Order: sequence, then C-alpha cells, then structure tokens
Amino acid sequence: MQSQSNPIYPVLWQDNQVLLINQTLLPNQYEVVKINSYQDMAKAIKTMIVRGAPAIGIAAAYGLYLGARDIKIQERETFFKELEIIAEELRQTRPTAVNLFWAISRMLKTVSETAGTVEDIKQILLKTAQEIQAEDLETCQKMGDNGLLVLPPEPQKLTLLTHCNAGALATAGYGTALGVIRSAWTAGRLERVYADETRPRLQGAKLTAWECVQEGIPVTVISDNMAAHCMQKRLIHAVFVGADRIAANGDTANKIGTYGLAVISQMHNVPFFVVAPLSTIDFELANGDLIPIEERHPSEIYQVGETRLCPDGVDYYNPAFDVTPANLIKAIITEKGVVKPSELLTLKG
Amino acid sequence: MQSQSNPIYPVLWQDNQVLLINQTLLPNQYEVVKINSYQDMAKAIKTMIVRGAPAIGIAAAYGLYLGARDIKIQERETFFKELEIIAEELRQTRPTAVNLFWAISRMLKTVSETAGTVEDIKQILLKTAQEIQAEDLETCQKMGDNGLLVLPPEPQKLTLLTHCNAGALATAGYGTALGVIRSAWTAGRLERVYADETRPRLQGAKLTAWECVQEGIPVTVISDNMAAHCMQKRLIHAVFVGADRIAANGDTANKIGTYGLAVISQMHNVPFFVVAPLSTIDFELANGDLIPIEERHPSEIYQVGETRLCPDGVDYYNPAFDVTPANLIKAIITEKGVVKPSELLTLKG
Repeated sequence: MQSQSNPIYPVLWQDNQVLLINQTLLPNQYEVVKINSYQDMAKAIKTMIVRGAPAIGIAAAYGLYLGARDIKIQERETFFKELEIIAEELRQTRPTAVNLFWAISRMLKTVSETAGTVEDIKQILLKTAQEIQAEDLETCQKMGDNGLLVLPPEPQKLTLLTHCNAGALATAGYGTALGVIRSAWTAGRLERVYADETRPRLQGAKLTAWECVQEGIPVTVISDNMAAHCMQKRLIHAVFVGADRIAANGDTANKIGTYGLAVISQMHNVPFFVVAPLSTIDFELANGDLIPIEERHPSEIYQVGETRLCPDGVDYYNPAFDVTPANLIKAIITEKGVVKPSELLTLKG
Repeated sequence: MQSQSNPIYPVLWQDNQVLLINQTLLPNQYEVVKINSYQDMAKAIKTMIVRGAPAIGIAAAYGLYLGARDIKIQERETFFKELEIIAEELRQTRPTAVNLFWAISRMLKTVSETAGTVEDIKQILLKTAQEIQAEDLETCQKMGDNGLLVLPPEPQKLTLLTHCNAGALATAGYGTALGVIRSAWTAGRLERVYADETRPRLQGAKLTAWECVQEGIPVTVISDNMAAHCMQKRLIHAVFVGADRIAANGDTANKIGTYGLAVISQMHNVPFFVVAPLSTIDFELANGDLIPIEERHPSEIYQVGETRLCPDGVDYYNPAFDVTPANLIKAIITEKGVVKPSELLTLKG
C-alpha cells in the first residue's frame, strides 16, 4: 500500500527567512523553526535541529547569507572581514561533515568573484545558497538513479539495510542512501528496508522510519547490534549508507556504527555501498585517519527522553562518527556515476 | 579508588520465601521483590525481574520448590504429576538459556531418586535449590580464577570490553564474564571496563555499569555500535562475554549483539572469550543452528521509559539472542578449566 505523500524539505527559504524542520522532535512532533540570524542557524546546526551532511551545508549557506544581510557596513573590504568572522563561527559548529566547509567556501568564492556593491553581494549570496540547495536536490535524484545500477540482480524484491538517516531530512530532499532506496521502491525493486535505530541519537528509529512511513515504504526497525544476526539469517541483500566526509582514497567518515556494519557486511558477503554527492569528497585529505571525529556530550548515551539509563559514577565515550576504510566499500555512488573507492580521483572536477 | 562493597545476590532464600533484586528498576531504584509462589516466579523470569542464564536456573529451582510446597496431595505419584505440570510452566518462561532446563532437570532427578514421603521430597527440593545456588557461586569464583590464565600478558593494566550483564546479577553472585573482570581487578590487571550499553534492554548501561560502580571498577559505557571504532583505535585488549546456551561444538548463544562483537573482534585480532559454567553447555545439541532464539516484544525497541522512539506504522524484529560460531571464540572459560570450543566434549562429565 503505497501512499501519496508530500516531499520532505528540511531547509526551506520562505518569506525572507529559513524554515527548518526541527529534527530533534520527530517523529513525535512536527515543528518548523524559523531562523532569522546566523547565530540561530549556528545553534540549530550544533543542536542538530538540522543534521545530515548535505543539509548542514545548505543550512550553513543560508546562515552565511543571514549573517551578511545583517552587516550594516557598505564598504566592501570591511564587509568581507565581517563576513569571514561569521563564516568561521559557522565552520565551528560541526567538525566532521565536509559539506559544511564546502558550502561556506563556495559562498565566499562567489563573493570574491563578484564586483558591485555590498548590496549586490548580499543578493548573490542568497542566490548561491538557493543554487546549492537546488543542485543538491537534483544531485540526490541522480544518485538515486545511479544507485539502481548497483542493486543485486536477484531477488527482484530486495531487502536493503541502512544506518542513521541519509534521507530527505539529511539533504535538500530525497536523500542519498535513502534516495537510492526510494528509487528502488519506485522501480519495484524493494521489498523492505531494515533501519538500524542508530544509537545514541536514534536517527534511524526516529527519522528514517518516519520518512519511510510517510511514503508507505515497509520498514523494520532493529537495534544496531541486530544487523549481524540479520545478515547471518540472510535477511539483508545489500547495505546503503550516506557519508559525512570521504577522503581522497575512499576512506569514509559516517555516523558511528557504520564501520562495524561494513565489517559484518564483508564477513557475510553483503555488498556495502556509500551514497554521497561530490561535495562530500574531501580531495585535500589523503586518507581517513586525517578526518576529525566529533565527540558529543555523554548525555546522548546516558539519557533518553526523561529516562536516565546509567548510574552516577560512570564514564562515557561518545564519538559521533567512525571511519570505514575504502577496502570495505564495494562502490561509492555519486551524481556523476558509480566508482570504486580507489577510483575516486577520476571524479575530481 | 576501590570502594568496599557488599556482595550482590540477585536471588536470596530468606524467611521461607525468595527475595529477588528487581533488575528492571536498576540502576535508578533498588527494590527487592518477595516471591512466594511458582506463578510469581514464572512471571518474574518472563518479565526479567531476574535474568541472566545461571540466575534464571537458580530462580527456577526455587520456583519449583515453591510450587511443590503448595501441593496439598500426600500421595507420591500424584504429587509427581503435579510437580511436572509446575516444571513445564517454569520451562515455558524463557526458551534460550539452557540453565533453566538444566536446573529443573536436576531438581526432578533428585526427586526421582528420593525415597520417603512427599514432605521429605519437599525438603530435598529446597536443599537442592540451595545447593544449585551455592555451587553456582563457587563456580563463578573458579571461572574468575581460570579467566586470569587467558588474560593477554601485556599491558599489565588491561582494558576489557563486555556485553550485556554477565555479572553477579546474572548468577548466584560474582558473575561469569564480569567475574573474570572482577578477578582481573583484584589481581591488579585491570585498567578499565568498556561496557556495551546492550540495546534493546540496556543491561550493560544499567546493570553492568551499576555493578562496576558498586565496586569502584572504572567503567566506560558506549553504545553497542561504538565497539568497532574502539577496537580500530586499539582501546580494547580483550572481550569477555557470558553465554545462555553453548552447543556441543562450541557455538554459543548469548545476548543479541554478541555475534557482531565476535566478528569485529576477529577483524581486529582482539581475543574473544566466552565465560560460562558447565550447566550452560547443552551437550545434546550438535551445533548452534539448533538453539531456539527467543523473540521478545517490539516495545523493547520502540520505547525507552516514557519515551516513544518510533512513529506508528513501523515493523520490528526483536531477537533476544544470537549465535556466535565456535570459530570466532578463542576459548571458553569454565569452572573446570579453559578449553578451546572444539574441545568442549572433554568436559562432559
């Protein structure tokens, strides 16, 4: 039973402000947050009201515009200095996802290439943010198409596993890994999605499950530690995950748990795919050891809702991401095509 | 800073009744439940007020005595028939842990070998339950000693990872896997325990962490999907887990997530040990494929405390255990010594 549903846009430019779906409240509450300043945008990124590497990039681009809009100075050079301070504050919000840095760089590059008044530059910044968003949506749809090429030929109806949320909510819309899964669903190649709940923040249980329910895609939520058992029972035909940063050699940082999932996938000969736009590839980094891994507050582990899980006196380790070495990844699916991790450099534009 | 602490006894015979620590309320609340009938004991096992393979065996033995105590019939054969009905009800509580079946068999065997009146038999049943408990405590301490033999020689202070709770709370006291860790602590060989939180019921975050805090053992709680990353960072020197049932070939059923942990341990050359008493070995079963795996209610996944995690319309799969093949287990530590999984049959008494 496939239901009609409206597309999900986590970041929307409307009435001269940014509207964010508050992803910390889903699935229990659908709330839209209005963002009118770069400070509020920085806070929204830090607190994960908006999350997902491409969506963070789009949000940061709009955040930079909002910051620029409020600069009163009309002198170009001073304006640029102010803008750089805002850019730096936005860069500090999350260290791992490279799309954040990529989007800010692109915004600043556009500015540096623009003649005209400060007011002209402000308009160019808004237009560039909108372009980044529009391109990401198109990019996701292309990745969805490209993902169809790597689906195992049998069975006709596949059961695919995904981790965290690499869906519409993590992008301009449609999604990366979940975009491929959407395309498989539309193409009649999907039986069911298995969604890792994805501790500690449970983006799989909360966001991926929510997106699937919106579209009537059958989804089974499991705890992360059940994936190996499911593979042992031959329940899973392929794994698709997103990425927060891909090094030049194909090593991939993604949500914590991705690496373990790649190891067990290899053990069971289940093909493991990464789906990410070119903006997620950091050609400057030789390998994954160089990717900074964000560590987040331990309360993400010891508390769920109002419930305290652990006793006092315990220590915590809460890395938000891990790095999957390239050799565990069967292919990386981008908007420009499907490549082996070792062939990433052929995509460098 | 090692604090003095009282030993933890999850099952206690006192004033003609069984006292159970209510493990569903820890660590936030320490409550003792009084059990006076076999029906209440069956419910306590099902709802996991008492859990952990050896502790379930002990609880079931006392449960059978409580049932026997209430049988009014004085005629031996009719009494035996009534007792078998109670035994069967207790067997139905949890399907995977073999200690449950082992303890009930032992109780019934003792009965069948006892001459005398029904009242004599009742006294023998109580005595046997107490013996099972006392032996388990001794067994755990022996396993702790034996575990010291397999600790990696370097470094002197080890960081050991465990999954779920195979501690005092899961046994008569002291624990199996956590018993080895206790012994390592006492022997000055332990730097720190990493405890997988162990979704969905979080026995690691709640129970293992609580036990460690009671004894001043440094403990770091991580979500299950962080273990692979920790091993990649060389933070873990060895893994110790308990078991719910071990087949004759060494295949081991234990809490869901154990299998994936064994796979990633092998990938990182981290030695992976199972700690279990002989009563956990099911010599009747040729291999792990034959071990029945309990599936529990989906609410364990979609709800934590008062917080509903997932949207409506989602499906769930909630296997409580998985099976780790013998080839991933470096050794099995029992009260009779340390053996390779392939040599288990040498322990058959």
